[in-house]
Amino acid sequence: MRVLGLDPGLRVTGWGVIEMVGHHLRYVADGTVRSTDKLSLPERLAQLHRGVAALIDQWKPDEAAVEQTFVNVNPESTLKLGQARGVVLLAPALAGLFVGEYTPASVKQAVVGTGRAAKDQVAMMVRTLLPGCLTTQSDAADALGVAICHAHHRATLRKVMR
Amino acid sequence: MRVLGLDPGLRVTGWGVIEMVGHHLRYVADGTVRSTDKLSLPERLAQLHRGVAALIDQWKPDEAAVEQTFVNVNPESTLKLGQARGVVLLAPALAGLFVGEYTPASVKQAVVGTGRAAKDQVAMMVRTLLPGCLTTQSDAADALGVAICHAHHRATLRKVMR
Repeated sequence: MRVLGLDPGLRVTGWGVIEMVGHHLRYVADGTVRSTDKLSLPERLAQLHRGVAALIDQWKPDEAAVEQTFVNVNPESTLKLGQARGVVLLAPALAGLFVGEYTPASVKQAVVGTGRAAKDQVAMMVRTLLPGCLTTQSDAADALGVAICHAHHRATLRKVMR
Repeated sequence: MRVLGLDPGLRVTGWGVIEMVGHHLRYVADGTVRSTDKLSLPERLAQLHRGVAALIDQWKPDEAAVEQTFVNVNPESTLKLGQARGVVLLAPALAGLFVGEYTPASVKQAVVGTGRAAKDQVAMMVRTLLPGCLTTQSDAADALGVAICHAHHRATLRKVMR
């Protein structure tokens, strides 16, 4: 079972692919999809969408997992993030994949063992849990963290949500 | 020149198609795209996206116009609206259409002549400006209003934004 984790953002969307082999996790790949500041919002959203759709084509995940966006104090930022998030969630849904959504706290809980872990602790634990993963990009590490969280919750989630 | 106007919402997205023939506007069609409450968010976004993409296929607009979402006091609502808005903006962008964005005030200004018009004044003026349009759905009337606003601003916009 292959999971695509996504950490949505308009400028940078992190992604990571892992595999569950029995109870073991295996690192497959990670990276970022970026949109160009100079383009209009609709064009940037199209860039993000095409980027994520291309990942799905390339890595053929069975399921996807997306981090729940932090609701910002600034409503403009929340709206911007919401727009990126909608487009990022859409790509796996259009491909017919089940998409799990997880709060930052549950991702930290799954990866570090506590919901209050710092961002660099998540990245460090992601590299520890996924031998071969050398990522230094925090957005990609977060996306791998969401994928790990999904792998942990998967059995329960499918029972509850389907 | 055919314009697709869109008023994004997760539950109901209003749409309207008009044509500019010289300096005249002609009503073509309007309606709503709805998503099913019971589905997951990714599935609802996929429903919205497929609905808007189908409109583009059917009505073959040359350009699109989307209302700028009202930034809500409630950040959760803003996020939800942002997600729907991202997906609604995406469909015409993926189809290669230019997408204009307009604030509610500039739509009211274009349709009613004042930025502080009430919602039902917009609907009434839309029906007056577009003979043959009998829409009673406020989301569809708003979408037609955005299309009218785009038609008015079009020449200037293309100079500024391209």
